[in-house]
Amino acid sequence: MKALFAQIAAPDAVFAQRALARQTQLTKPPGSLGLLEQLAVRLAAMQRRDDPSLENIHISIFAADHGIADEGVSAFPQAVTIEMVKNFVAGGAAVNVLARQAQAYFEVVDVGLRQTVDLPGVVTQRAGCGTENFKIKPAMTAEQLVTALNAGQAAVGRALANQADVFIGGEMGIANTTSASAIAAALLDVSVRDITGAGTGLSPEQIGIKAVIIEQALQLHGAALNTPLAILQHVGGFEIAALTAAYIHAAQRGLPVLVDGFICSVAALLAVRVNPDCGAWFFYGHRSEEKGHKIVLDALAAEPILDLKMRLGEASGAVMAVPILQMACRLHNEMATFSQANITTG
Amino acid sequence: MKALFAQIAAPDAVFAQRALARQTQLTKPPGSLGLLEQLAVRLAAMQRRDDPSLENIHISIFAADHGIADEGVSAFPQAVTIEMVKNFVAGGAAVNVLARQAQAYFEVVDVGLRQTVDLPGVVTQRAGCGTENFKIKPAMTAEQLVTALNAGQAAVGRALANQADVFIGGEMGIANTTSASAIAAALLDVSVRDITGAGTGLSPEQIGIKAVIIEQALQLHGAALNTPLAILQHVGGFEIAALTAAYIHAAQRGLPVLVDGFICSVAALLAVRVNPDCGAWFFYGHRSEEKGHKIVLDALAAEPILDLKMRLGEASGAVMAVPILQMACRLHNEMATFSQANITTG
Repeated sequence: MKALFAQIAAPDAVFAQRALARQTQLTKPPGSLGLLEQLAVRLAAMQRRDDPSLENIHISIFAADHGIADEGVSAFPQAVTIEMVKNFVAGGAAVNVLARQAQAYFEVVDVGLRQTVDLPGVVTQRAGCGTENFKIKPAMTAEQLVTALNAGQAAVGRALANQADVFIGGEMGIANTTSASAIAAALLDVSVRDITGAGTGLSPEQIGIKAVIIEQALQLHGAALNTPLAILQHVGGFEIAALTAAYIHAAQRGLPVLVDGFICSVAALLAVRVNPDCGAWFFYGHRSEEKGHKIVLDALAAEPILDLKMRLGEASGAVMAVPILQMACRLHNEMATFSQANITTG
Repeated sequence: MKALFAQIAAPDAVFAQRALARQTQLTKPPGSLGLLEQLAVRLAAMQRRDDPSLENIHISIFAADHGIADEGVSAFPQAVTIEMVKNFVAGGAAVNVLARQAQAYFEVVDVGLRQTVDLPGVVTQRAGCGTENFKIKPAMTAEQLVTALNAGQAAVGRALANQADVFIGGEMGIANTTSASAIAAALLDVSVRDITGAGTGLSPEQIGIKAVIIEQALQLHGAALNTPLAILQHVGGFEIAALTAAYIHAAQRGLPVLVDGFICSVAALLAVRVNPDCGAWFFYGHRSEEKGHKIVLDALAAEPILDLKMRLGEASGAVMAVPILQMACRLHNEMATFSQANITTG
């Protein structure tokens, strides 16, 4: 746990400066590639390269179950968590299709499904058989939290061993928008109602019930919610803990992170609250339709790459943004400069 | 010219219905892939395929000069049009990089540069040596307009011959945001000031001068601006005319169109005003930073795929959107259904 607080270096300012200078020399009006220019400059600074590149994409999907699902807060039954893990292994889920397109390394990490599964390609680092129902008691013990955090750190270790250029975390866990909304409400000065959304497809009435359950849980745990990690322990989920630790560890190791939607952004917010310097290493793949995402993105001063009205999770929005980052790199590296192309600049 | 008014069939409603039904069966909460679902369904209907696909990408960049450049309405000198055409041929421009990434067929069409160029890979179908200064006289004659329209139609013919799955038009022409703004102001009930923007990088003061020039031109031509094609002739550009005809002809031939930024959207608006049914065949690649684009997109009820704060033109925003459309197709075609994956649906 102490490792989470270890120092994080900033991306390299000299490489950033050089990349910025190159952008002004490329054959286009200054600034006309918009966000693509910033993406390339940031990657150059993170990778300490004049030719930033995103070839090896690492995707870890952290899967876990949630005791709070007992309260009927999801449009899908809890069994779907494990069923979707099987779908990931079979290659039939959205993220599988996108991972193939991106030629990404793809793995599923069981951080605490309700039951163990014995499936090829699933890394097992379980913190328990799902969390407890946090409306009644803390979601996890301090020991379980450490196990889940370690699972995230280990995933980054595998990404580094595979020479990944970017780390993408994803999540699967029925009822985990309830946990993520509770965390965000505890971390931010916002009302539960403002941050609680439809998840996989609740009706407005069901969303109201979900918000009441979150409010009750936050009252129950009250004073215990005094640090980001305490919040994570009391109302979090194993996969959210794993993502939080993964994001921090990636930043510590100088590995760029591409954050997915609402739940991953809540993990990013936890990460930044635990170790503020990690935020400089994060890209945000997309703006989700889940109601609370805007609030969390604003708190992170994040500018997502895509806005496709997606709300699926499982890293899908992050992987969708990979080609945009890749094209930003290629534009930066391959465009002619004004002098190379003999173009009059004014 | 009569060909522009020929009938346009709607995309196939039966294929659209079947694609919609499939989307509800894929292993994700209904609607959770957002815009990607709509893109796949629309493409299935256009291509009359259950497995829509975007493999062969055709890009035609129409290049032409503008007499209105004499008024100092651009941040770059007129010589840059031809210099950028040379850059396209050498492969150093942004769109070249993106076209390579998309493995697209790429061509430049000289519809009326100030001087002829003899370069490999440039199709020559010239309507003149640049347009006239439309602050003083009509930008082009009726004959020149026909030549420029034909150049657009011919480009679609080549795309069809190459079995393209989508037609992307782009433009290069110093001062062409002035022409596009004039067209949009004449077509829409908006003030010139609201639709006139920075182009390649004017200061606020220069934008004010540009708007005054456009206002003067619209007053000069006044009553002559009574049809979309008359507007195109009086204040348009050869490349804008070519794009307009290309978009209409593509729709007539059932070839999906991916529209780029401000200038291309103005051509799309002209196309829809000439032959309204063509709009059903258009996708919009991105929302440009050029001020007037929002107004034109709203007039078209268009929902662009990307919003990356780009403002470069030369088809760059459209080509950026190609991977998104491709991933929409692959998700539609390759994801498992609930029954294939044995997933409980509630």
